[in-house]
Parts: sequence; structure tokens; C-alpha cells
Amino acid sequence: MTPTRTHTDILNAAGLTATDLAGGDLAVHSPIDGAEIARLRQTPAAQMPDIIARAQSAFKVWRSVPAPRRGELVRLLGEELRAAKDALGAVVTLEAGKITSEGLGEVQEMIDICDFAVGLSRQLYGLTIASERPGHRMMETWHPMGPTAVITAFNFPVAVWSWNTALALVCGNPVIWKPSEKTPLTALASMVAFQRALARFGDDAPEGLVQLVIGGPETGAALVESPAVAVVSATGSTRMGRIVGPKVAQRFGRSILELGGNNAMIVAPSADLDMAVRAIVFSAVGTAGQRCTSLRRLIVHNSIRAELVEKLKTAYATLPVGDPRDAGTLVGPLIDADSLARMLAALEQARAEGGQIYGGERCDAVAGGAYVTPAIADMPGQSAIVKTETFAPILYVMGYDTLEDAIDLQNDVPQGLSSCIFTLNLREAEAFLSAVGSDCGIANVNIGPSGAEIGGAFGGEKETGGGRESGSDAWKAYMRRATNTINYSAQLPLAQGVKFDI
Amino acid sequence: MTPTRTHTDILNAAGLTATDLAGGDLAVHSPIDGAEIARLRQTPAAQMPDIIARAQSAFKVWRSVPAPRRGELVRLLGEELRAAKDALGAVVTLEAGKITSEGLGEVQEMIDICDFAVGLSRQLYGLTIASERPGHRMMETWHPMGPTAVITAFNFPVAVWSWNTALALVCGNPVIWKPSEKTPLTALASMVAFQRALARFGDDAPEGLVQLVIGGPETGAALVESPAVAVVSATGSTRMGRIVGPKVAQRFGRSILELGGNNAMIVAPSADLDMAVRAIVFSAVGTAGQRCTSLRRLIVHNSIRAELVEKLKTAYATLPVGDPRDAGTLVGPLIDADSLARMLAALEQARAEGGQIYGGERCDAVAGGAYVTPAIADMPGQSAIVKTETFAPILYVMGYDTLEDAIDLQNDVPQGLSSCIFTLNLREAEAFLSAVGSDCGIANVNIGPSGAEIGGAFGGEKETGGGRESGSDAWKAYMRRATNTINYSAQLPLAQGVKFDI
Amino acid sequence: MTPTRTHTDILNAAGLTATDLAGGDLAVHSPIDGAEIARLRQTPAAQMPDIIARAQSAFKVWRSVPAPRRGELVRLLGEELRAAKDALGAVVTLEAGKITSEGLGEVQEMIDICDFAVGLSRQLYGLTIASERPGHRMMETWHPMGPTAVITAFNFPVAVWSWNTALALVCGNPVIWKPSEKTPLTALASMVAFQRALARFGDDAPEGLVQLVIGGPETGAALVESPAVAVVSATGSTRMGRIVGPKVAQRFGRSILELGGNNAMIVAPSADLDMAVRAIVFSAVGTAGQRCTSLRRLIVHNSIRAELVEKLKTAYATLPVGDPRDAGTLVGPLIDADSLARMLAALEQARAEGGQIYGGERCDAVAGGAYVTPAIADMPGQSAIVKTETFAPILYVMGYDTLEDAIDLQNDVPQGLSSCIFTLNLREAEAFLSAVGSDCGIANVNIGPSGAEIGGAFGGEKETGGGRESGSDAWKAYMRRATNTINYSAQLPLAQGVKFDI
Amino acid sequence: MTPTRTHTDILNAAGLTATDLAGGDLAVHSPIDGAEIARLRQTPAAQMPDIIARAQSAFKVWRSVPAPRRGELVRLLGEELRAAKDALGAVVTLEAGKITSEGLGEVQEMIDICDFAVGLSRQLYGLTIASERPGHRMMETWHPMGPTAVITAFNFPVAVWSWNTALALVCGNPVIWKPSEKTPLTALASMVAFQRALARFGDDAPEGLVQLVIGGPETGAALVESPAVAVVSATGSTRMGRIVGPKVAQRFGRSILELGGNNAMIVAPSADLDMAVRAIVFSAVGTAGQRCTSLRRLIVHNSIRAELVEKLKTAYATLPVGDPRDAGTLVGPLIDADSLARMLAALEQARAEGGQIYGGERCDAVAGGAYVTPAIADMPGQSAIVKTETFAPILYVMGYDTLEDAIDLQNDVPQGLSSCIFTLNLREAEAFLSAVGSDCGIANVNIGPSGAEIGGAFGGEKETGGGRESGSDAWKAYMRRATNTINYSAQLPLAQGVKFDI
Repeated sequence: MTPTRTHTDILNAAGLTATDLAGGDLAVHSPIDGAEIARLRQTPAAQMPDIIARAQSAFKVWRSVPAPRRGELVRLLGEELRAAKDALGAVVTLEAGKITSEGLGEVQEMIDICDFAVGLSRQLYGLTIASERPGHRMMETWHPMGPTAVITAFNFPVAVWSWNTALALVCGNPVIWKPSEKTPLTALASMVAFQRALARFGDDAPEGLVQLVIGGPETGAALVESPAVAVVSATGSTRMGRIVGPKVAQRFGRSILELGGNNAMIVAPSADLDMAVRAIVFSAVGTAGQRCTSLRRLIVHNSIRAELVEKLKTAYATLPVGDPRDAGTLVGPLIDADSLARMLAALEQARAEGGQIYGGERCDAVAGGAYVTPAIADMPGQSAIVKTETFAPILYVMGYDTLEDAIDLQNDVPQGLSSCIFTLNLREAEAFLSAVGSDCGIANVNIGPSGAEIGGAFGGEKETGGGRESGSDAWKAYMRRATNTINYSAQLPLAQGVKFDI
Repeated sequence: MTPTRTHTDILNAAGLTATDLAGGDLAVHSPIDGAEIARLRQTPAAQMPDIIARAQSAFKVWRSVPAPRRGELVRLLGEELRAAKDALGAVVTLEAGKITSEGLGEVQEMIDICDFAVGLSRQLYGLTIASERPGHRMMETWHPMGPTAVITAFNFPVAVWSWNTALALVCGNPVIWKPSEKTPLTALASMVAFQRALARFGDDAPEGLVQLVIGGPETGAALVESPAVAVVSATGSTRMGRIVGPKVAQRFGRSILELGGNNAMIVAPSADLDMAVRAIVFSAVGTAGQRCTSLRRLIVHNSIRAELVEKLKTAYATLPVGDPRDAGTLVGPLIDADSLARMLAALEQARAEGGQIYGGERCDAVAGGAYVTPAIADMPGQSAIVKTETFAPILYVMGYDTLEDAIDLQNDVPQGLSSCIFTLNLREAEAFLSAVGSDCGIANVNIGPSGAEIGGAFGGEKETGGGRESGSDAWKAYMRRATNTINYSAQLPLAQGVKFDI
Repeated sequence: MTPTRTHTDILNAAGLTATDLAGGDLAVHSPIDGAEIARLRQTPAAQMPDIIARAQSAFKVWRSVPAPRRGELVRLLGEELRAAKDALGAVVTLEAGKITSEGLGEVQEMIDICDFAVGLSRQLYGLTIASERPGHRMMETWHPMGPTAVITAFNFPVAVWSWNTALALVCGNPVIWKPSEKTPLTALASMVAFQRALARFGDDAPEGLVQLVIGGPETGAALVESPAVAVVSATGSTRMGRIVGPKVAQRFGRSILELGGNNAMIVAPSADLDMAVRAIVFSAVGTAGQRCTSLRRLIVHNSIRAELVEKLKTAYATLPVGDPRDAGTLVGPLIDADSLARMLAALEQARAEGGQIYGGERCDAVAGGAYVTPAIADMPGQSAIVKTETFAPILYVMGYDTLEDAIDLQNDVPQGLSSCIFTLNLREAEAFLSAVGSDCGIANVNIGPSGAEIGGAFGGEKETGGGRESGSDAWKAYMRRATNTINYSAQLPLAQGVKFDI
Repeated sequence: MTPTRTHTDILNAAGLTATDLAGGDLAVHSPIDGAEIARLRQTPAAQMPDIIARAQSAFKVWRSVPAPRRGELVRLLGEELRAAKDALGAVVTLEAGKITSEGLGEVQEMIDICDFAVGLSRQLYGLTIASERPGHRMMETWHPMGPTAVITAFNFPVAVWSWNTALALVCGNPVIWKPSEKTPLTALASMVAFQRALARFGDDAPEGLVQLVIGGPETGAALVESPAVAVVSATGSTRMGRIVGPKVAQRFGRSILELGGNNAMIVAPSADLDMAVRAIVFSAVGTAGQRCTSLRRLIVHNSIRAELVEKLKTAYATLPVGDPRDAGTLVGPLIDADSLARMLAALEQARAEGGQIYGGERCDAVAGGAYVTPAIADMPGQSAIVKTETFAPILYVMGYDTLEDAIDLQNDVPQGLSSCIFTLNLREAEAFLSAVGSDCGIANVNIGPSGAEIGGAFGGEKETGGGRESGSDAWKAYMRRATNTINYSAQLPLAQGVKFDI
């Protein structure tokens, strides 16, 4: 089935007008066919101070709006996203190249986090704590931090924004959003939904509560370097994080970094192989291997290695690569030609390091797009290229003999985002999840490394950057903690029994 | 009463032998009289890699020792500290110049955190979380991070180590401790107590579990820059933090920074003035104004300003400055002559900025020590010197008319550690503790800014560095969080309803 | 303004049809005018076993539906309640006699708890816990309990149901609802909204998930006594609780009891009297004094007693008593003539015990309704009638000299639901909230005892029954806790170091 | 090895004097040899009101002692128990008949809970909660409940007391302890240790903080029925709980019931059979089958049933039954002859219901004691006797074919305390732990049902009584929760947007 809606139809359906889409110098292309679909106005560098100042002013107001009332805005945003789900999903597909189901799934993730954040808005729990002094009360309260920059990447052009924004808003922080230069249209379309929510919400929301800035690294730098931006949540490459982290640290700001992943699956002898195959294929080729949590390394027990690789090749052989809008497509285009070039170079290096490559061939599903068949690289060991994150559908396969070896391989990369094991053996599964198991922020059993639910905290250590977003107590990253002691007695005892009588 | 024990008596009583105290090139002086009390061997730079490697090896073992068993070691440490309380307190007094009660209070703080950490050792609670997928279970587990560097300052030469070490050990991390070059003897004496605990603990503890390194900035740098040091907990100046933070961030390590404080008290018209005076004096002159939480700024309602300043002058006039070992002394020496020079320079600047100075005069309580009478600087406003943390007993006084103004003054400094208000007015107290109140990590009512209990989290935002230590969930800084999803079904549903059927 | 809609219009607008409203033998009257507004079919006793069995069957299905999916049903219920807010609020007014604003507020409370429960549906947090044994993992998981009976009272005919049902559903429990015989129509109307949500939700919900039973004590007894009803949540009188509690205890079921309150306010000398007066009037006469949290006892400092009583009399003098549908009305009818008789008898007793009565006069705002002017009973002390909960707008006033006396008076009644203090004095406020202060489940400062937010846990000790509903971790009452230890090692160590080698 | 210490030696070593042990009419016998070892004075019924009043007075003082200070008393108790471990363990063995290792293990459990409670004493965390109203703050605080009765059973004569007492004390509650009439001496000996701790603790502890009462059911009834006893924690039979629960409920007190268990193990085909055998034997015959968590039902997959039963018979054949003081003994005496008679009667019934009995023969290891060889009853199904808890070493064996059947068998008894599965299959283990798995309060994998760590909550649903003791948040049962809203604004907004303007 060939989609019949034009690119413009899709953008219009999401509320973007001709005025929105033209008049600037940032050319936006669809990875589907390489067509230019908009020329956007970028935010002039000179405006950044005003934008940040506006966020600061908004903060002074928003922090005093009760959190459950702030939650109501997020609830309305959730309603608007529900209403716009199809339209917004289609823009994700158009601009990021995701297949339809994944585009919709991304919007669903926005909706889910809104629901979750609404619940949080009546929680934001601190602690009351037993004090050692008579007539004293202790507690811990959480207060908003201030303006929050959200810097997002092309591969989750809207979900990551929503994770941050739903929480930041409920926590009392204004947001300044800098989307990837490759996916500003999904950002604009999301802001349309947000504006609708805002209009229904009424007067409690200050002007400048959520602002969108469009631009490149210097726009990001303005946010990263401003002492008035209390929190910088940045998703992207380790290279980017290595710049952002120290800069924010130097000005004693707070950063939430979600950087590279080089995610592995261990397949143990007892694994349900059919399930494993399905999980591997989805994790490795879904979103054309461009998820932070995409499966990149397969560590398979030597006793089943040959069989598993064979099954994978069979599965890969029939994977429909093509226009992501087509119902049958499972593998859409890479984001752009550079990305494809990096993939092909990586495969070249893998070959040089002894790998047997299967797939990884350029194909011309749609003219103008960077389409490629997903690749399997059967490797003699965890060589340099395997330890490198290449944002493309390459699956490196390695063998192992003991679980300890497998875990060593899993952990012996600089990144620490996601990981999993397929096994039906309880001892193996538990060992993998234990202190001596996976060193990743996400460690799963019998599901792939990607596709986290929003109820858990998302992120990882090492070069992944250490940030956590979404569920659990990730909201604390958007707030500051105050430890309070209240003396309601008429005495002044000192802690630790210190005596000091003047 | 003149102390009759010699410096050597005191050191010996804490278990330090002649061998410990001689043979090196780091001269240690007592601030009491400037006497050299030891010449310590410094850790050669060349040994640092081995020391770090030993910590890594220890980590591989210690992380598998069950946490309650790890807690047993900390419990034994607590017992040893109880037994050595007097001896260790005396070394604190000797080497850091604290009065006896404060020296003992610091050891008590070590004991308290051990008790607390023992309790934690059966908790380290993560969450189990409801999953959106049938036949799936989610949970969040916390695992040890790895070797933890603890870099401490002279003013709390042992308590801060114990905060970090008790938690790090229970959490499963080995520790490498670099004390201030000014207070290595308290560190050695604490290690004696730790070794006793270790001996009683038995075989489960690996070699190299807690290591002491003695040296200057380059020793610290070796820890800060090593990718094998998972956590760097550093207490000291903002200047130091501005170096450490970015360096650790660049290698994606984790830092816990406890840096400068410029702590204020607001005194409202309804305050119990007698209590306020006592609290002010203790907070401002205790530890000779050398606590991170020392009171430095007094923001007093104009209606009571004159009266309060008068009362303070009266109180200051009789403050016994002198040998900290004497029972009657409340103000001991500054740590060294440089410190005194910086204080006098600050007073000079305050005078230049329009301040009326009271006190701040050098006195020769004990020859060789840097003794000074605490100073009150009645200021026309929050000028540059007031916004600067000078680690000495200077109290800047400013007036205010409305609570909003007072809070603005309180917040308008780069530091964010501790703060308090004295008021009997509920609305004022609550406003001060609210989102529009103090921006500090510690905000108290009717007690001074210093003297936190170990049950709360200690630390603050802005130039204070953002770290949290001691109570509440500060232990999480020593662990990594893993989000786990376990699929025990025979199906492979995807989150957010994504469909991907191969 | 006279309402122009007929009773039937109102019921129809809420989705109730003529068939619903006729054909039975339970006559339902509006307290507004005493008119019979329906004749409902009661649930035959013989059907109760089937109904309970249906709930059990539903439980087997519902407990396996993932909690976030269960939350989706509650989210849809919230949407339906939003859509039906006016219609449902009007039925509350018609059937329970609440003024319009309170009728709407009650529906808003239903909406709020749905939002909150949706958030909970991705939480239901248990703990992971550090184990003392190597190769062991401990955790705590929460599972649904089973069928939950919800027995509600006339005064919150729908909100209390929603508190219980939103949580029970999210937790995995089916619900059987027995509303008060006086307010079955609001129950029917709420079920209409629920059925709409169910229809949108789709197939995951089993038949019999929420069932309504209509009847008297024997219907309730069938639920209370059935071992198949895992949880009994009952709101009503202490007399009822004294029957229900032991019966459920005898069969080892779980009960959540929300029983009597005899709620007090202490007014201290520093109180903002204007605020206090407004709070007192709302708390004492709102819902015609028929809230569980209605203010019944005023404990006022003797220095301001006369002034405060005078202000109250002035305020009471102009309180508009009348048809609750009229925009200006603040005091609607009592639920029925019996209630009025009990009020008048209580006033008689108060008089006999030395009270000076103001107000408390029957009036005929609308023919057929039990209208009365709210009463103030200025008492010489806390006599027998003051310790008795009379469900009507009587405010007993007593004086005090010291805060300790005031707190003693506050606590010296058998009930323990809600309480408050009006004071601007921090020490008094904190003392009131401390371990030596109020013994109630709710203790407020500068707001009245009624009108709790859903984010907190609602309930109290003593004759109030000890249950907690709504926010915080009240959800745990609907679940059972399992402590799990998983041994994934090949060893079998025993806890506490026990040796047992066979 | 024959013990050389006399009974009196053992009692004296634990601090019990001749005066303690004589002069009363309660004869205490050792189950080892039936010898009378003391004649204790019982608490006269007439004294109970005074004792309860003393606890109430103590409560007024103790609740105001800061919790960390209360924790210090518990810490000292832990130290005294460490010092008295051998002596107290020997009394447990003497009076309850436990083998030496188990006697010591029980004291270790007392020590562990003290450590844990000390940590809690700086926590007792409530929540701070986001309020929906501007200028309002919400929090949840926990306050002591009041006098706590602890009624313990013979089989854990001291550990259960310590669980309750360590928590109750830290929470601020005085304790009145009524031990089993069969084991009052361990209680006296524990009180000796407590008195030592008290003496070291100093003046903060009020008189009557922990009181011991000795007597039978009427002594217990005095506690159960007194409205002044806020909490009743009772461990014992379901029969007892069915009396206590309703009585406490009727007076709106709080009960913590730890009643019967009928604990099962499922052994799946993949189980590590050697581990399973060891776990079964320890769980079934440890403490002579007299633990609440003793294994009573073995549900074994039919494919391995014969093999497993054979292995068990082999293991049972060599189990050393005898004097519990002997180093080699694993099975000591039953508590008394009645207990033995009940065991034999149960075996008789099992036989009548089709069971094949192995073991269960009376033996005369030590004259005067009730010694018996542990029994295996291979049953055709879960007949009546299997569903009955007999407090003796009988292990009923049943077969199963599907895990679902096994779980149905596991759950199809009235009790709900402990349970476990032995399997290496992840899916089976997780299913067993899930909402459709075991309905017990304790559900383990690859360890037996007994021997819980104190870090988890201990207890279960159904006829087990629903109480939870020891770890996790079990401390909440000793405290009351207060939900506080503080309005620090000058406005009086109502929740849920209700308008009520007078």
C-alpha cells in the first residue's frame, strides 16, 4: 500500500501551517525519501538571553502554583496527545523515519508519562524524620529547581521531551526545549498539542512556561552555559555528553545525561530460542537500529551459537525494508546518508577485525532515502568496533562458554545503558541481575534491551552518563531537596551532645 | 586548668606510635601552639595506581559480601569508636584546634553514622514496580558502584570521612581516604580504630578495603582522574569543587561535592531573642567559625537590629578565646596563620565597604597559635565581601524590612548550604521553608545553621556542589540503580503497545 | 432562584431511566422536600452468594490484568465522571441534600482519586531488601487481596465509594458496593458512569468487576460475614463498626473502618480570628454538620472566648438555610426527620448539662424537608453530650487556659478522626502536631477539620476505627504483602547463622 | 557428650537467682527431661490494672523521649544480648528444648532486630506530600500508639518478644510481656539483660517501660480487653487469634496477630534435589517441627515423588533425636507429652485417610522427655488432617502434575504464613511469586519456608492473622499515622474547589 497523503498533508494534520514551515534557513528533510519538507526559522543566538530570562520569570510564578494544579496542565496535555495520537505519530514517521507502529508507540509513551506525572503531582514525597532532640521536628521537602533545558535527539524526537517535560512541569520547572536539528517538526507539532492544553488550562500558567528553540550546537551551548538554566537534560552521543557534563559541572548546575548505549543480550543454553530470535530481531533492527537501547551485541553460548545465527539469518532474510508508512515494513530508513556511511564503515572495520558479515547492504526501497538491510557481524571476539556504538542496525555476535565470561564481555564496554539475558535458568537470571552481573542501568530477563516501560527509571552509568528519567524517583532530578529542622521548644540543645554554654 | 598531657601523650593514647609519627617530610603542626607534632611519610605518586588497583580488587570481593554482613564491620567500627572516643576527640582538638566538647561531638557523629549505617545494611531498599505487561515483573535494585575516594577537609577531619565510609562500606564500596594535609593524624588515629574493627571482623573483608593516602593536590588528582575510582566524595572549597566536578564529569564518574557555605540567619521581630543570641554565638564562633555551616550572615529585622547587635556585642565581649583543651574555652585557634591573615583582610575589606567592625583582634592566648576574637561586621548592605565565604569567625549583620526582602538577601549569594530563621510566627517559618523561601539544602527554624543531625541528608545546591551525605537516602550516591524487567511468560509483548511481528 | 428542573429531570440527566427508578419496595426520598423520588428493587438476600461468587470469578481474571491496564479503566472512569460532573452533582444534591457547590465538590473528589489511582497503577511499590545471605535476593511484593465490599454512608454517597473503588480496581480487586439505603440513586448514577467507562475499556474487564447491591443491614451482613469477601471497607457509625470489626476479625478478613468523628478546633490567642470564624462556620454547618469531619467542638482560649462566640453568633445569624439547589443557600436540610429529632434531643441534653444554646431552631425552608438553623452550644465543660457524636450542625464551645488543657480536652473523647488548631504561634502549632498533641488521624493548622485532600491518608484511631483511605499508602489495605527470598546460589545457609547439617 | 552443667547452673548463668526461681505456684518443666526447674510466682489478676496504669504513665514520658535516644536503649539491649548470648541460648535450650545451635540462633535474632531497630530510630519516616492549595503544606507523621502487650508462644520464647519490643520501644511504646506459661524462664532471663541495658541507659527511661507478667489465659485476657492497651501483639494458635482479634476489634484497639501456619514446599522437576532434601529436613524437623514456619506439606511433582520420598526416608533414618544440648543432636524433644499425643493422633488420622506413615515413633532419648522420630506421611491427597496444623514433626507428602495444581494445593488450606518452591526454572519460580502464585505472607524460592531474616516483614494472611512483624515497615503497626495540613497563607481555600463564602 502506498501512502496517499503528501508530506504536507501529514504536517498540516498535526497543526503545522504553511507559515510554520517556511521562511527560515533550516532545511528539514524526510529520511523516507530525502525530500525537503520544511525550511524553519532558527532561534537567533541573540534571543537566547531573553528566552532564558522569560523562563526565569515563569519559574517565579510556576513554583508557587500547587503541584496538583500543575499536574492538571499535564493531564490536559495527555488528553491533547491522545486526540492527536495518529497525527503526531505520522509526523514522527515522516521526520524520523520510524515505522507507523513505532511512531504511534512513541506518542503512547508521551501519553503514559503524562498519566504517571499527574499521579506524581499529588506525591513528590519527601520524608519526615525522627529527630534526636526533644521538641524538634525534622523533615525533607522537595522544591522546584528552576528553568530546565531539554536537549533531545532525532531518534526519540518527542518521547524524551515528554518524559522530561511532564516531570519538570509537575515539579515546578519551566522548560526550554532544543530538539535535534533533524527533527524540529515533531517538536513544533508537539508544541501545538501543548498550546491546546495550555489554552484549556487557563490563567495559572505563566507566559514562557515551555519554550521551543530551534538551532544547532551554539543554541545548545547557550543553554548549557547559562547559570540561569538550573537543569540540563541532554540526550545524545557520549561525545556530546563529554562536553555538556563538565560545562554544567563547572557552573554547579545539574545535568541529566542520557548518552550512548552498546547494549548486549546473553543467550544461555536454556533460552527459549524462538522467543530470543523474535526479541533479537526487534531489538536489533527496530527503529533501524537507531534506539539508544538497540541491541548491538549478542553474546551467545557456544553450544547454540551456530543454530541461533542460522535462525537469525533466516529471519533477517525476509525482513521487509522500506517505506516506514507501509503497513508491512519493519525496517525503515536510516536518518540520513551520513549515518549509512558510518554503518558501512563500521562493517568494513568489523570485516577487518575478523568478522563475517551478513546483510548490511544498501537498498533503494525509496529513492532518496538511506535504506539498508540490517547486518549480522559474526565476530571472533569483542574487538574495537564491537566496543564502539554505531547508530545503525548492526548486530555483533560473539560466543561464550561460562556465564562469568559472558558477563565479563557484557560489561567490558565503556557504555552502560541496557542489557539482557535469555535463559530459563533461575540461577543464571539472578546472577545476571545481581551485584556481580550486568553493570547497566537496565538489565532484563527474557526481553530485549529496548522498549522500557515508563514506570521504571531509564538511564545508565559509565559513558551512558548516569542520568535517570521517566519513572521511579527520576522526578527528584528536577527538584532540590531541603533538610529542615524545626525547633519548637524553648531550649537549644546541640546535636551529638555538644555543649556550648555562653 | 592547663592540660598536663603532652602532644605525644595524646597521639600515643590514640594508638599512634613513634614510627607512625616520624620519618617523613610532611610536617604536621598543632594549631594550638604551632608546635610540630609529627613528620609523616606521604604516599608517593607512583604508588597511587597500585592503591587504586588494590581497591578495585577489594571491590570484586566486597560487593559479594552480603550487606548485613558488611554492616557488621561498620557496627564493630562503631564499637571501637565508642571505646576510643576520648582519645580520638583529643586528637581532633590537638590537630584541628576544636574545643574538647566539639572534638568529642565529632567522634559522636562518627558513632551515630555507624549506628545508622548498620540499620541501612538490612535495607538499601529498591522498589518493586507494577509492570504494564502480563507475565512481567519489574523491580529496581541497587548495587555497589566501586572504589570510592573520600577527600576531606581539616575542619571536620574525621566525621566527614565516617559519613562517607560507613555508607560506602555498607553499600559495598572500598574506600581510599585522602585527608587534609593539615589533619592527617586524626586520619591515622581513625584508621587505628578501623583496623581494630577489621581484626575482629575476620576473613570476609578483603585486603585494601579502606586505604589511607597522605599527600597534597596531586594525590587528590590521582584519585579524581582515575576512571577506576567510581565515586569521588570531596569536601572543601568551591574552588576545589570547580576543578574536581568537571574532571570527574569528563570521565563519567560520580562526584559528591560538599563545598562552600555562606550561611545566614534571619531574625524576625517575633523571635525569642535570648535563644537567637545563643544560637548566633554558637553558630558564628563555634569551631572558630570554621564549619562549612558556620553562621556568616545575620539578616535581622530593622526593628530589633540595634538591640540584637548590642546583645551580641555583650556576648562576644566575654567569649573565652584560648587553648581549646581548657574546660572554659569556647573559641580555639584558627587552623593557621594564613587563615588569620585572610580573616583580617576580609575585615579590612568589610570596613572599606562601609562596615562597622567589632572584635576581630588578634590575641595571643597561646604562643604560636592563630587566636583571634570573633568579629561582628555591621554592614550597610550585602556587599562583595559578604557574598564571599571567609573561613573564620566573622558575622556580617544586615537589616531588613519585609520577609520577602530578607529571603532575597538570604538567597542572593552563590553558595547554598545552610540557612535558618528565628521566628515564633508560623507563617514566616513556613514561608521560609517553602518553595519561595530559602534556596539552601538545609533550612532550619529556631536553631542555627550548623549542627545537623546525621539522620537528614547533608549538603546543598549552587556553589555548595549539590552533593548529599549522611542520612535519608544519601546512600544512593554510593550505589548504582538497575531497572529490571523479568518476563516469565512465554509471550513477548512490547511496551506502549508497539507491534513488530516477524 | 427556584430550580426549574423536576426531580425526575435530574435523575434522568444522570442516566437513570424510569425502569431503574420504579418497581421495587425501597422508597427513596429527597431530603429537600421529602418527596419520594424512586422505588427501587432491593437485592434479594438469596442472590448474595451468587454475587459474591461472581466477584470471586472476576478476581481470578482481574488479578492477572497488569496494574497499568487496570489503571486505564480507572482513567476512563475519571473521564466519564468529568463528563457527568454536573449531572451527578445534582443527584448528590437531590438525594443527600448537599448544596450545589458541595455536590460538585464531591464529584470532583471522585475525579481526583481516579487521577491519583492512575498514577498508582504504575507504582504499587514494594521493596527490594538487602539479604544477609550470599547468593540470596529479598523483595517484598504486593498482590491483590480479592473481592472488596464497600459499604458507604449517606453523607458522602459517592466520594467514599470512589476512594475505595479506584484503589481497589487498580490494586486488582473486584468491588461489591452497598450504598446507604438513603442514597441508592447516586450509587445507580455512578454505576452508569462506570458502565460507560467499562464499555470503552473493552474485553480485559471480567463480568462482575463492580457490582451494586441495594438493601439494608442484612445485605451488609452477607458481605461482612462471607469469607469470600477479602476486604470490607465500611463507612458509618461507631455502632456499626463495633459490629463489623469483630465479625470480620473472627473470620480473619481485613476491614477498613471509617467511623465516628467528634472533631475539635482549638483557637489560640494568636489566631487570625476572621479566618477562624470562616473556617468554623464552614466546618460546623457545611453539609448541615453531617460530615464525618464536621467541626463539633470548639475549644477556645478564655481570653478570646466571648469575642469569638459573639462573632460566630453574628455569622450564624445570617446563614442562608434552605433549598440546597438555590445558589445562595449554605445550609441545606438534614437527611431526615429522625436526624432532626436527634439534634433537638442533643440540644435539650446540652441545655440540661448547663449549655447556653444559640440557634438550633426548626425552620420550614421547604415543606417536607428537615431544615434547622445551626446551633451553638456554649458549654461549661466537656460534658457527656459533648463527647457524643450527633450528626447535625451543633457546635459545642468550651474555654481553656493552657494549651496542654486544650489538647487534653481535644483528646478526651472516644473518637479520633479530625482536629485542628488556629494559631499563628509556631510553638503551639508544632506542639499540636507532635506526639503529645492531637491524637487524631487528621490534625490541621489554620484550616478546619473537614475538607481533606485526596493526596493524604484519611481516617483515624480510637472509635474512628483505624482505617485509612484515599492517598499516601492507603492502597496497601487492598493488597497483601509477600516477603520473598530467592536463593540463587547452590548453597543453603540458614539465617542467624544457625547450623543444621544432616 | 553429656552436658555437665545442671539445670540450675544454666539458669544462674543467665542471671536468675534462687529467689527468682522459687516461691510460686507455676511449675516450669524442662522438656529435655521433664524435670521441674522452677516454681514461679504468677502475676495476680488484681495487679493487672496497676501494671497497665504504670505502662500508661510510662507512655506519657517515653513518647517525648526522642526516637534516636530511645534507640540508644535498644542498642544497649543488643550489647547485653551479645554478652549474654551463650547463657541465654542455653536457657532457650533448657526450657524450650531447642538444640544448641537453634537456641543461639534465636538469641542472634534478638541481636539482629536490635541493630535494625537502632537504625530505624533515626528514620520512622513519614511523608511530605504535595498540597493542591497555595500556601498549604501537607505531611504525614507517625506517633507512638501507647502501651503494647506482647503475648508470646513457647516455640520462640524470646525472639518474638524482641521483635516486638525493639520496635515498640523505638516507636515510643511501653511493653507488657506475657510469655507462654511453658517458657517463663527465658522471659525472666531476657528481662535480666534488659535491666542491665536500662541501668546503663540512665534516667530518660520511665519506670514501668517494659514489664513482665506471668500467668495464663486470664492474664492475657486482662491485656486483650483493656482499652488502655493500645496494641496487642499475639503469637500463637489460630484458636487463640479467633478470640483475641474480635475482642481487640470490639474496643477499637490494634492487634498484630501471628497465628497458625501450614507451610508447604513445592518441589518441581528441575529442582536441585540434594538442596531440596536438606531444606526439607531442616524445615520439617528443625525445632522438632514446632516452628510457626515449619514445613508441614510437601507437594512434589509426580515424576520425582518416589525418588524424593526415598531420599527423605534415608535422611530421616539417621536423624539424631535426643538431648538438645548434645552437640550431635538435630531433633530435640517436643514441648510436652500433650504435644506428643496430638502428633500421634494426627498420624493415626493420616493413616485413616490413606496415608503411608514413616517414622513418628516415640523414643526415650532422655527419660522424662517427649521424644519422637520425625514422621513422613505419604498421602493420597490433601485430606482433612493435612489441612490441619499439628505442631509436631509430621511431613505430609502429596504429588502433582501441573504447577497450577501444585499452587492450588498450596493455597487450599486455611492458613497463609509461609511457602516455597524448589525449582531451577525461572518461569515456575516467578509464577509462584506472582499474584496467581502462593497466597502466603512468605514465599521463597530454593530455600525452605522457615528461617526468615529479620529484614523482611514476617507474617501472613488468612488464619495466620494478617499481622506483620520485624523488618520492612512492620514498625508502623506500633505507631499511629497523622495526616497534617498546615495553612500558612492568609486565605482559606477549600479542597476540591468547593465554594462556601459566608
